[in-house]
Parts: sequence; C-alpha cells; structure tokens
Amino acid sequence: MAAVHSRAARAARASLVGIVSSSAASSARAADLLGFESAYPSAEVLLADATIDVVHIVTPNATHFDLALAALREGKHVVCEKPLTTSTAHAALLTEAAEEAGVTATVPFVYRFHPMVREARARVAAGEAGSLLSIQGSYLQDWLLAASDDNWRVDGALGGASRAFADIGSHLCDLVEFVTGDRIARLQSVTRTVFDERSSRPVTTEDLAAVLFTTRAGAVGTLLVSQVAPGRKNRLHVEFHGSEESIAFDQENPEVLWIGRQTGSQLLTRQPGLSADAERLAVLPPGHPLGYQDAFSAFVADTYAAIGGESRDGLPTFEDGLRAVTLTDAVLESARTSTWIDIEGTNP
Amino acid sequence: MAAVHSRAARAARASLVGIVSSSAASSARAADLLGFESAYPSAEVLLADATIDVVHIVTPNATHFDLALAALREGKHVVCEKPLTTSTAHAALLTEAAEEAGVTATVPFVYRFHPMVREARARVAAGEAGSLLSIQGSYLQDWLLAASDDNWRVDGALGGASRAFADIGSHLCDLVEFVTGDRIARLQSVTRTVFDERSSRPVTTEDLAAVLFTTRAGAVGTLLVSQVAPGRKNRLHVEFHGSEESIAFDQENPEVLWIGRQTGSQLLTRQPGLSADAERLAVLPPGHPLGYQDAFSAFVADTYAAIGGESRDGLPTFEDGLRAVTLTDAVLESARTSTWIDIEGTNP
Amino acid sequence: MAAVHSRAARAARASLVGIVSSSAASSARAADLLGFESAYPSAEVLLADATIDVVHIVTPNATHFDLALAALREGKHVVCEKPLTTSTAHAALLTEAAEEAGVTATVPFVYRFHPMVREARARVAAGEAGSLLSIQGSYLQDWLLAASDDNWRVDGALGGASRAFADIGSHLCDLVEFVTGDRIARLQSVTRTVFDERSSRPVTTEDLAAVLFTTRAGAVGTLLVSQVAPGRKNRLHVEFHGSEESIAFDQENPEVLWIGRQTGSQLLTRQPGLSADAERLAVLPPGHPLGYQDAFSAFVADTYAAIGGESRDGLPTFEDGLRAVTLTDAVLESARTSTWIDIEGTNP
Amino acid sequence: MAAVHSRAARAARASLVGIVSSSAASSARAADLLGFESAYPSAEVLLADATIDVVHIVTPNATHFDLALAALREGKHVVCEKPLTTSTAHAALLTEAAEEAGVTATVPFVYRFHPMVREARARVAAGEAGSLLSIQGSYLQDWLLAASDDNWRVDGALGGASRAFADIGSHLCDLVEFVTGDRIARLQSVTRTVFDERSSRPVTTEDLAAVLFTTRAGAVGTLLVSQVAPGRKNRLHVEFHGSEESIAFDQENPEVLWIGRQTGSQLLTRQPGLSADAERLAVLPPGHPLGYQDAFSAFVADTYAAIGGESRDGLPTFEDGLRAVTLTDAVLESARTSTWIDIEGTNP
Repeated sequence: MAAVHSRAARAARASLVGIVSSSAASSARAADLLGFESAYPSAEVLLADATIDVVHIVTPNATHFDLALAALREGKHVVCEKPLTTSTAHAALLTEAAEEAGVTATVPFVYRFHPMVREARARVAAGEAGSLLSIQGSYLQDWLLAASDDNWRVDGALGGASRAFADIGSHLCDLVEFVTGDRIARLQSVTRTVFDERSSRPVTTEDLAAVLFTTRAGAVGTLLVSQVAPGRKNRLHVEFHGSEESIAFDQENPEVLWIGRQTGSQLLTRQPGLSADAERLAVLPPGHPLGYQDAFSAFVADTYAAIGGESRDGLPTFEDGLRAVTLTDAVLESARTSTWIDIEGTNP
Repeated sequence: MAAVHSRAARAARASLVGIVSSSAASSARAADLLGFESAYPSAEVLLADATIDVVHIVTPNATHFDLALAALREGKHVVCEKPLTTSTAHAALLTEAAEEAGVTATVPFVYRFHPMVREARARVAAGEAGSLLSIQGSYLQDWLLAASDDNWRVDGALGGASRAFADIGSHLCDLVEFVTGDRIARLQSVTRTVFDERSSRPVTTEDLAAVLFTTRAGAVGTLLVSQVAPGRKNRLHVEFHGSEESIAFDQENPEVLWIGRQTGSQLLTRQPGLSADAERLAVLPPGHPLGYQDAFSAFVADTYAAIGGESRDGLPTFEDGLRAVTLTDAVLESARTSTWIDIEGTNP
Repeated sequence: MAAVHSRAARAARASLVGIVSSSAASSARAADLLGFESAYPSAEVLLADATIDVVHIVTPNATHFDLALAALREGKHVVCEKPLTTSTAHAALLTEAAEEAGVTATVPFVYRFHPMVREARARVAAGEAGSLLSIQGSYLQDWLLAASDDNWRVDGALGGASRAFADIGSHLCDLVEFVTGDRIARLQSVTRTVFDERSSRPVTTEDLAAVLFTTRAGAVGTLLVSQVAPGRKNRLHVEFHGSEESIAFDQENPEVLWIGRQTGSQLLTRQPGLSADAERLAVLPPGHPLGYQDAFSAFVADTYAAIGGESRDGLPTFEDGLRAVTLTDAVLESARTSTWIDIEGTNP
Repeated sequence: MAAVHSRAARAARASLVGIVSSSAASSARAADLLGFESAYPSAEVLLADATIDVVHIVTPNATHFDLALAALREGKHVVCEKPLTTSTAHAALLTEAAEEAGVTATVPFVYRFHPMVREARARVAAGEAGSLLSIQGSYLQDWLLAASDDNWRVDGALGGASRAFADIGSHLCDLVEFVTGDRIARLQSVTRTVFDERSSRPVTTEDLAAVLFTTRAGAVGTLLVSQVAPGRKNRLHVEFHGSEESIAFDQENPEVLWIGRQTGSQLLTRQPGLSADAERLAVLPPGHPLGYQDAFSAFVADTYAAIGGESRDGLPTFEDGLRAVTLTDAVLESARTSTWIDIEGTNP
C-alpha cells in the first residue's frame, strides 16, 4: 500500500520527505523504490521532524494505535490505513486525540472517491431513489483461498481479532452508510474460519462473514464478506433498493451505475450532467476509465486540501474509522453469541 | 400460469381434455383460449372423469390443499403450483397422500430444468467446486413496487401468511438446495411489509425478506427476496463459493454459468461436453437460447415420463413442495421471534 | 431443424399429418421421434394428400427449389427454410409461383419474432432513433472451426455456392433491413475459405465474409459473418447508430436492447409499455426469458394466422427469401471481382 | 490533454520545468493549474532551454510538424500527440529527423499500456490464438453528435483532412497491429460527414468511417469509427478470431479479456500468472482497476526509461505515428476513389 500512498501524495504535489519501514535496510530500499528524499532511522525521529506536515501510517493493524497517537501528539496531520485500530476503545481514543489536536485525520475509505459513488449518494440524498427498502452487499476476494495462502493479516496478533470483516467488510459498511446516509442499527452475523492453520501457524481470524441487518430508517439487508471466494479478486458490489429506484455499484467496474426503475433500467456511465460532487472528481473525460489509484489520489488530494483549510465534502475521518471498528466488533460479538447486536451510534 | 402449463402439456403431446376455472363462463373462455377440448362445470366433475390421467392445479394458494387432496383420492397424478400449501401440516398431509396413492405428484420448481442449472449441480456433485463455503442468493421483482400494484397473492386469505417468500423465496431455496445437495439447517430472518394496505385492503403479507443461514455442511449464506426491488423483473441470482470454484447463475440469463477459480474465471455457456443431465435438457443447439417455457416444458415432460414409469433425475415432488413450505414457515417464525430457527429435515 | 419446426407447429395446434425424409426408414424414425401421424413414402405422395394444408421444407438447400415449386403447384402453403434457393433466379421463380398460387409462403427469418426486435423496429419507425448513420453487424459461430468439423452445408452441391453468408449472413441482413426499414444499396466484400478440404472433400464455400455497405438512406456499415470464430456459438449482434439514439441487439441475449443516447444509456428489458407489436409477441411476463423456440413458434403461428386470413405485420415471405439470396449473390460477386456491387431492389 | 500528460510526467518523477500555451496569459494559467515551475514566452525560448530534456507536444494537429521538427533539431526527446502530423510526407520527415537526432520520439498510443492488451499480444505471439482469421474493430464516441457540438478538431485547417479516423481510428489501427503483429495490407473505406457545418463553419472532415480490410497474413476484417454514435463515449472494442481462440478487448473495461474457444470461453481478468509484459505493467493488485491515466503514465514512464537508455518493449515511436498517418491517408483516398488501396509498408 505504500506505493499507492506515495503515488497519491506525489500526484497531490506533496514533497515526499521521508519514510520509515521495519528496519534501516528496508527503509532505505523503500525510500529508493518509492522516491522519498530520505529514509529515517525510526518513527520517533520522523515524527520529531518539524518540516513534516502529514504522516501516512501504512503498517500492520496492531501498530496503528501507537503510531497514530504519537503522530497526533506531535501535531501531525495523519492518514491512517484501515482498520483504524484493532479495538473500539482505541479507535475512540484516537478520534478524540485527533479532535483535540485540531488536525486533519483521515482513513482511506477510498471507494467514496469514485465519481459514480458520489453520484449514487447524490441521487439518494436528492430523494430520487425514494425511501430505502433493502440492501444487498458483498465484498469478495480469493487471495486467501488455499491453506498455503498466507499474510501478516492472518495473524490475530498483528491484524487484530477480525480479519476479513475488519479489512474489507469495513469498506463495504462505509460505502453502504456513505451512499445511503443511513446507519446500520442492528445486526446478526455468522463467521467462518476455513483453515485452522496457515503456514503451521494457528488461525483464529475469520475468512468469511455473513451479516443480516436493519438500518435506522428501516431498511433490511444482507452482507457477505469473504477472502475465500474463488474467482473474485476484489469484488465489492452493493445494490440498494429504494421505493423509487434501485442503484447498483461494482468496485471492479467503477465507472457505471445500474439504475433500476419499474419502468426501465439505465446504465449510467460517467458523463456530463452528473451531480456537482461527481463532476468534481471526474478528472478525465467520459469513457476514459478512472481506476483505483485515481480514487486513492482524490482521497489524498482532499485530505491535503482539508489540511490546507478547504472543506471537502465526504472526507472519511477517524470518526468514520471508529465507526468501522465498532461495526466490526459487533459482527464478531454477534457471531460469538448468536444474538442480534444493537449498534451504538458513533456518528449521527 | 394456466397458459404456461397448457403449452407445456401440449408440447409433451398430452391431450388437453378439460379445464375448470372459477365460473362456467371463465372455464369456457379458458378452454377456448388455451385450446382445451372442453370446459367442465366443476372440479368434482373433472376429477370424476376416468379418462383424465393428470391434473394441473393452478389456482390461488389457499385452494391447493383441498383440490390436490381430492385429485389424489381419485388416483390422479397431480402437478400443483407452488407454494404447495399455505401450511406445513397440509403440505405434509399431501405428501403422505401422494405416497399412499402411488401416483406422481410434482411441484413446478422449474428452474431446475435449465441445462446450466443441471451443469452446476453436476459440478458440485462431482466435487469440482470443492466443499461449499458460502452462498449469496437473491430473488428480486418489482411488480408490487407501488401501493397501487395489487393481486390476489397480496391477500393472506387467498395467498397464505407468506407472500414474497412463499412465492419466490421458495424457488430460491429449492435452487440452492438442488444445486448444492446441501440443506439449510438454521436461519434467521427479517421481513418487511412496505404498504399497510393496497387497494384499500389491509396487507399482512411480507413484501421482502432477508435471511441469514447456515447449512448442514457448514456453509454460511444470505438470501434477499423482494417484490419491491425497482428494475428487477424476475431476477433470481445465486452465487456459490466452494473451496475450489465459485458458480453463479442468473435466471434472467439462464444459458450461462460464471465459474470462478483463483487462477481465472470462465463464462460457461451451454455447449457440447456438458454433464449428461445438462445435455439431456439441451434440446436446441448452443447459442439458440432456451427460455422459461422450455424449462417449464421439460419439467412437465419429465413429470409425464415419471407417470409413464420412467425415472427422471431431479424431478421436484410434493416432498420438495413440503420442504419449501417448511422453510417459508421458518422464515416467518424467525422474523416474528427474532431468533434462529432450526429447520427439521423433511428430506435427507 | 425438423424438431424445431414440429414443436412450433404443435404449439400452434396444427395436426402433424405426415413427414417424408430421405428414406422410408428415416421417415419412419422421424415420424416416431417427432410425433407425426404417419410417414409418407415420398414427397409426391405427401403433396398429393389433399388433407394437408401446409408443407414445411427443411431439406438441404439445393433441394428447396424443386420441392417448394411442387408444393406451390399443389396449392399448398409453404414454409421453406433459408436460404430459399441457391440462385437468385430460382428464388424469383418461387416468389412468383407463390404469388400466382395465392398461398402463404414464408421463410423462417425468426429473429424478427423476438419482442425486443419488434421494439427496436418500432423505435426506428417512430423516429426515436433519428436518421440512421451507421450500422455494425456480425453473426459469428464456431461449429466449423476445425478442419475435422463437417456437414452437408459445406458441400456446394448440396448447400449452394455460398455457405456462411447464405446460412447466417442472410439472417443478419434480414434483421438489419427489418429493423431499419432501410435497404442495403451497395456492398463490397471479402470472403475466405480456411480449409481447402474437410473430410477429404474439397471445400469451395466460404467460412467467413466481411462486408462494407451503404444503404439507400445513406447509412454506412460493416458486417462480419463467420462459422470459424472460436467461442462464438450463435452470436448475431447488431448495433445501429441513429442521429438520436443507438440500438443494440444480441440474439444470444434476446430479451434486452441497449439504447444509447448522448445523455445516457438504457438497458431496455422486455417489460410493460413496449410497442404494440412487441407486446403482442410477449407471451410470458417480464423476466421470464423468451428464447429461440418461442421466436420460432411465433413465426409459425403468424404464418398459420396468415393462412387463416389474418394479416400479421412483419411476416417474412418468399420475397424476403429472394432478397436474402440476392444479397448473398452480391457478396460472392463482390468478393470475386473486388468491386462494389449495386443491389437491385427486390422489395421497396 | 495537457493535464493528463503533466500527471503522467509527475508520476514518472520528472521536473515539470516549463510550459507554453497559445498566449502568455494562457501559459501562466496552465503553469499554475498544472503545477509547472514556469511559463515560457514562446516555444522557441522553451526549446532553447538546455535544462529541458523532453518536450511534450499537445497542440492542434496542424502545428505538430513544425514544433516537433524544431524540438528534434534542438536535440530534445519528444512526445507528440497523435495524429503525428496531418500528412504522410511530414510524418516521414519527422520519423527521419528523430532517427537522425538519435533521440527518443514517441506518440501516445497509450492503449498499448493496458496489461490486458499486453496479455492479448503475448497470447497471439505465443501462438495460443492460432493463425488470425478475422477481426472486428470499432471506436465509437458521441461527443460530436449534435450539429451544435464543436471543437477545433472539426476544422480541417487545424485538425487536418481527416478527423474521426485520424483522431481515434489511428488508435484502433495501432491496437489491431500491435496486438496481432500483423499489418493491414489493403483497405476499402466509406466515410460520411453528417453536418455540412458546425457553428456556422463549413465542415469537410469525416464524422464516421467504415473500413473493410485484409492483412498481410490473410485475415479479413472490418472497422467502424464514429464520433456520432449516441451513447458510446470512448468505446474502442476489438475482437480477434484466430484459428485456436478469439480475444476481445474493450477500452472502457480494460481489465478483462474475453477469450473464446470452441470448448468454452474465459473472462480473463488481470491476475497473477499473466505474461511478463503484462505483469510489468500491473502496478496494482488484481481487482483494483487500472484506468486510462495509469496506461498513460506507463507510456510516459517507458518513454522516459528509453530516454534513460533502457529498452522497453512496445514503445510507440514516430514510426508508429507515421504508420497511423499512412493508414489514415489510405482511408481518405479509398473513400474518395471507391477503390481498394494497397498500404505500403512503413514498418515490417
């Protein structure tokens, strides 16, 4: 992810001052590979550098809390990878700390930065979709399908108690709530760990999760999140059914919405005449596909704009990161207890 | 549906001896329109006609039980529309009665009769998909979207306590269990009725249902069933994720399966070299789309073959109709009680 | 094809009186398999049977002329497979003979009978698409891809001088002209025969043809027709670009049109509110796919309705069959001479 | 296009030294908007700046020749937008001049830089597709659909004698020849200009062109190029039929190839295990869509790598730009004369 962050920072015309990785050698390699001016000996030294305005935290999940807190205490603006932390309590502390520090602190829920996601959100907000009735969402990958597929994320000590849901389910929930403006109110879930161990290491984190939920506004929905779905590489797909129209979005084909109406359906591609928010993010002409890096770069550009004092609509902050951690915890608790979990509101 | 049944019967070279509808006039009109030899004054008279071998019951749900029981008692073979009955007890009685009568008694779960559904089932049975991990299913329609959309099915007295799930969720569950050979073991559901009344008549039956479930074999899954999903006409879509491959099927485009593997995905269209069961149903060359009526006609042809003493694999019987009613009852009960419901096995 | 014709005839409630095939044995087998009342010893005997109203000719192309002429002379109504004949002169003679006989004489350009094709035609006729600017059409199959793939159609003596274009290009041209109401005015073509021999038999007929054309109304277009296009089973695809909207149709997915407009695109599925002509052919509810047999059955039903004295819009007659043969001849001639060929009008 | 070029240059870690536009004011605005260090008073001054290594020419077509020649004479490396020039003679002169100067001179045929395009090319080169039989290509846009749609490209004096074909047909031909390694040998075309004038200015350049062609290796094909195809934004679509497999690519969905085989079809998404050339360009994990800017940035990065002395396979040079101009001239000449035009080879 460091490559993606650094490309976005460069595109936003930042100076890439310095980088720290797990060792001096790897820091040096990363600085060279990604084009940073220098490699720092430690996070402490980097954070002490007063010329640095913004810190991007792209480390294993369990380290986010300490690093982000230290950065905030140094008065740095922070971009921290999701999941923000591996516990709700820590996420709440960071959210508070960011507020106290008065800095910009964001989490890369970057799917928000596809123009057609903004268009979907604008349609819902304008009432074109009517009142929300049902939602079907899924986020499916297959990179951990085999027992031999392994990664630090699989290790609960590094990645946290939740894996699939914390890692990608959080994106899915964020997208559902971002587009609808509604909030998941209660949920019931089942999780499954397919392999007890990977690379001779015990695995306690879930490979997949299925969720049933209702929203504050009364919609009902289902979510399926899996890192063991053969043939699905990064398939985040959501379909919203309103009382007037349905809207479907697929992250792997992000330049089009399917808009369903009783009287006919539309394939709404990115084109002139969309909502102002979508137009703003449409930095290429119609038919010239925007991709993942473009969305990521737009997120970083908006973060930097916020640092510069400009308010940009739809910026995912630590509060949104906290929300995702809260929902992830609820998914685990429901799976453990086989009961409905009410979600306490973090944001309105 | 009478037109669909009569076309299928004629295609199977049956003699369309007689028909009864709700009145003498409508019976006469139906006989004329559909090409029956005669209109009968009543179901009793029709059932008393010894020249009639098979009776198709295509009446409002609440009347199925009495009619089917009467037909079975006359020793007729019976094709009864789904839901077989509006209560599990009645469905069980009919299933027993059919067995005692020693006749063929089937329910038109016709999606089983698409060659590509058979192909999916054959792949799972042969172990090509590996062990089943997760399932995402939906059956979405929009013909009851507006408060002004109405139909006898909306009326619980005619259609039964469940509407959306009994009517189309039953198809979805049948397909999931038919393809996987697995059984839904436990479920948790939420239902929603959007309009309290339609055409000034109170509505108590659900417009949509969302279901979380686990199977006997340990797969987890979600279902979304709705008759108020704008732009979706008859969208039955299922995606199965096995440990080796995923399989997706869409009833609105029934001549193709998406087969996902970690190493690549396939669009498997109907073509030479499929499983024997798929080949048997492929009555047109590849690229010449088979549709809904073709599936229905194949169902009726197999029913008649069974009557003639030939065993045909995959015929949906009253036992399968009972299974669907059992699952529908569980969905309603879970929604009412907010608890997990264990499904008692009807068939192994 | 005999199975397809007989299913359609039975669906139209015809009595399947008799059948003749290439030998007494094969006639008997066919009668048994397809459910005809009897097998006739010869075409002559069959044609002499005054109880027979309609004859379907489903024999190798080179035999169409003699059989159809004999049938017309007996005053039979005729359904003759395409290509109507293997020469323009013969097709013209048949067309005349049918007119003189005052009978109904049709050719199964059955793709006309998909409701969405009628919808496309109605949109063009109503001016919704504006004036036609360009057309891209293709009809691609792969059943003759390998040198070992063989069939009587490959033999020029049985199938005629043209194979791919006569067999499937004719469908494509008919569809283009049927939907647009326009006529191909000039064309330039290239053909290719991939294998000099198949099954040790010399092959002189083309495996593929590419065509450049202009229409009377001034549209320009391209066609690609191939029986050696790997992975394409029966892919007839046309896209029309009018000055107001584009319309695309794919025979393998016949229940939807893509409608393109500068301001947005639509996936127009079969649904309520289509043109009267489309609605008439929509014998199943939306979302219940109509397929190839349904289109074929509608063609036969309309042919029989015409025999019964009812005029049905869009019936493909021998005149349309002649048109297709004329275009096929032009394609061969252009390929031979590398020049533009002007098409003489057969129908206005 | 200047924004796209400048983003790509920045991503490649170039210093954006200076920019010149049509006036001092617009140069200053562009420098500010795009983040250049300074605005230059004229092209001459800019070209005289010895600190500048590479010049990107992104001006109206008719100015390319003079600017590129001047830049080459100053020993600059040049990236020049397509069409390279508005006449074959000029393009040949530039190609020679670049060779003499010993610099890197490239034309942004950027669709070459999609990983899946490289994968298609690798499959053809490795013989997996067999020998090429037929090709169907199209490049369709709608931004000039209305008479009121206007642009400098419409003006022959600025844009050259060809518009649609020079602008986008050139991309299509480049892609066809790049993927197949084959060359268009002869062609026949028809062009059409829909509006005689736009914004009260006479229009002589074509809005659409249809082309029939054969290749040196004996494949036959069709091309349709239009800027007046409603609903198509930037639809470059090609389908190649080899004797073993078909390959289809769609620029608007560039992360997937359709691979057709007689025994089944594949949707080959970007994933591990592709050809080395495709892997090299796959800078994001599977399922994270690469888009137009990513392809453009890869083109610029490879251009800069070549400048730095590294040879990168598949770089589109002025020779390729010349080839495109040659084909465009042939299209205009064939349309004018209604004859087949033989293409003289520019590159082998």
